[in-house]
Amino acid sequence: MFSGTNLPKMGTYNVNVVLSSIQASEGISRVEIAQQTGLTAQTVSVIVRRLIDNGIVEEGGSLPSAGGKPRKTLRINPTAAYAVGIHFDPREVAIVVVDMTGHELASSHQELSPTLEPEVLIDQAAQAAHKLLATLGIPDDRVLGVGAACPGPIDQSQGLVTSPPRRDRWTDVPIKRLLTHFIGFDVIVDNDANAAAIGERWSGHGRSASDFAYMYLGTGIGGAMFLSNNIYRGVSMNAGEFGHIVVEPNGSPCYCGNRGCLEAMCSPAAITRNVHVELALGRDSSLSSLYQRDSSQVDHTAICIAAAQGDDLARRVIDRVAEYIADCAVVIANSLDVELLVLGGKGVRHVAEIYKDKVNEALSSLPLARRTHVLRVAISEMSADGAALGAASMVLHANYAPNTAHLVSVAAGG
Amino acid sequence: MFSGTNLPKMGTYNVNVVLSSIQASEGISRVEIAQQTGLTAQTVSVIVRRLIDNGIVEEGGSLPSAGGKPRKTLRINPTAAYAVGIHFDPREVAIVVVDMTGHELASSHQELSPTLEPEVLIDQAAQAAHKLLATLGIPDDRVLGVGAACPGPIDQSQGLVTSPPRRDRWTDVPIKRLLTHFIGFDVIVDNDANAAAIGERWSGHGRSASDFAYMYLGTGIGGAMFLSNNIYRGVSMNAGEFGHIVVEPNGSPCYCGNRGCLEAMCSPAAITRNVHVELALGRDSSLSSLYQRDSSQVDHTAICIAAAQGDDLARRVIDRVAEYIADCAVVIANSLDVELLVLGGKGVRHVAEIYKDKVNEALSSLPLARRTHVLRVAISEMSADGAALGAASMVLHANYAPNTAHLVSVAAGG
Repeated sequence: MFSGTNLPKMGTYNVNVVLSSIQASEGISRVEIAQQTGLTAQTVSVIVRRLIDNGIVEEGGSLPSAGGKPRKTLRINPTAAYAVGIHFDPREVAIVVVDMTGHELASSHQELSPTLEPEVLIDQAAQAAHKLLATLGIPDDRVLGVGAACPGPIDQSQGLVTSPPRRDRWTDVPIKRLLTHFIGFDVIVDNDANAAAIGERWSGHGRSASDFAYMYLGTGIGGAMFLSNNIYRGVSMNAGEFGHIVVEPNGSPCYCGNRGCLEAMCSPAAITRNVHVELALGRDSSLSSLYQRDSSQVDHTAICIAAAQGDDLARRVIDRVAEYIADCAVVIANSLDVELLVLGGKGVRHVAEIYKDKVNEALSSLPLARRTHVLRVAISEMSADGAALGAASMVLHANYAPNTAHLVSVAAGG
Repeated sequence: MFSGTNLPKMGTYNVNVVLSSIQASEGISRVEIAQQTGLTAQTVSVIVRRLIDNGIVEEGGSLPSAGGKPRKTLRINPTAAYAVGIHFDPREVAIVVVDMTGHELASSHQELSPTLEPEVLIDQAAQAAHKLLATLGIPDDRVLGVGAACPGPIDQSQGLVTSPPRRDRWTDVPIKRLLTHFIGFDVIVDNDANAAAIGERWSGHGRSASDFAYMYLGTGIGGAMFLSNNIYRGVSMNAGEFGHIVVEPNGSPCYCGNRGCLEAMCSPAAITRNVHVELALGRDSSLSSLYQRDSSQVDHTAICIAAAQGDDLARRVIDRVAEYIADCAVVIANSLDVELLVLGGKGVRHVAEIYKDKVNEALSSLPLARRTHVLRVAISEMSADGAALGAASMVLHANYAPNTAHLVSVAAGG
């Protein structure tokens, strides 16, 4: 059922509207904020004054003005607050610390031993995060909180990792409670694709897009979406599972129970398997001798590098993957009619341009609405730590992004 | 960019929150409204008083109360206002008049001559609507407005039908301006799938679902979605084109430029074509003799009736269609994670249960999140005039539904 709104919610919302206007700009005046947001000059002025007093916003140089007093530019104060992001990937844990603008200050990585108990691992991650903060000289009271990105599905209200594919030890781990216990800060948990999309929203391509989809190519293939400026998670927090769009009916079986899912056809494991079969069949490739010496060295990274360098076999396999990704992009265009599709995650490294070209080609010729507008494609420019950076952005986003859902949430009272 | 909110927007929003609480119930007290919406008892009381004074809401009988004064139930006053809905289908124009609760009071239908100019047709529809209103004794000043449902794509801001498939005469027709001119009421234009979904929201299965998708099986196959209680249209008003999800790579070519789209494989024209081929090949069927006498009589309706009655050939073709629709439902489940999928439109008549069973089977076994919740399937219970009823509901919806987008729209000023 719908919930009503009230003055306190409205106040908080408008503060965040002003803040996001400043955050999205490279320096903006009070007058421009009023124009962009539809708020009155007086409302903007009161809010900005409070943000400056709290140290969140700072005044910069003056802009030339058409008469009257010069307009001062406003900027987010990067040192106002900090956030920690932790990405629990099946293979490693990445930890980053960002400032208030989402800029990465430091990172650390830990390879994962497959035998490690989740609670031991989470404890180690908490210690590593505290060490990073100490190195940077950031006191605890300037840390807004910690974002944790995990492979989906997540039970977001509980912070449980319910039953991530291929990681049995992580079934029903109360990651939010454990991490809060070990690290001593507020913790937000979300799946890696949502985290990466929120990162893109906060400081990447998504800054200027009201409606965008994110295809996250990691160990698996996930997705996320911002619709009408809000992240959309679905009724059970499982929206955006683009990796389970079927691209090849009767294709390879997928752990989800279906066949021919994008993930089953295009995950790093599937790509590696396909190339190994071709190499075992004796097909010519620059990877052949390496495969004969030690087949485990012909991994996803080696294949992507070979494809980028023009190896025929690797390129053929990657081209087919690009076509499947493009098929999926057309489904996203026809279903969601967003303005931007971001491709990100470790899986795009070395082959991003191949994927982007094929997706662009499909999007300019196939979606029904292509004559109205062509869905733009972008490769995430986040570093390899995209999901960890995104996890840190979740903290900024939760605290500072205007969210119409919060405007009308019952939780905040009548 | 984000827009701020203000007191007038907040007031309007809360009135609509209260109204939608009353509308979704079968009689509700002020206390229950406050509980549902999170608004204070005082706010609810003030809003309800104003709605009663304006004649929009009426008090019914008393509910038993646990001490204190008895709680009066509140209901929408059906005669408070009326709306007209017009569905411009490629084959006919359907016109309905509904009361304030979305209940159909009367309808009329006109077969379309393919040679009719759009402006002549629109003029005739306007006259027919006025005749219906006169028959019902509804004065013009009680008519809230007119909703028009057209085959997509629509340019919603302009009310143009930009280039509907298979209707060249309707390309770039300014339907909103023409209809407003002829009918003399405010006009809202949307595509038929959105109209049907809004109808479902207002008085069908969608009443109690915050997140649902609608698959509209008409002359073509369209779709629509309510996400977080708001209709989601996408950046160019073309979201929800589920008919162009590819279900058979390398399948029949579709007018959209792709191959094997749901619409290309499952539209009434495709179904009819497939059955005709089988009959021409001499396959045994209860439709054979009719086909030999006059093949044009073996149309989509005849085929669906035959399938429902157990004819093997017709049933085989319809079963295959049901499987494709189910494939599409799984894509919707994995991408959108909604709680409900409504199947509606003329295309489901006679075969609704066949489609529903196959979709239910797929949704309980294939989507990734099926262990968290199974997407519910429902057949629209709207009459054959679903899109026309939906078009009328658009008027009620635009005037009375809480819309967080309006809460933060710039248009309403600072």
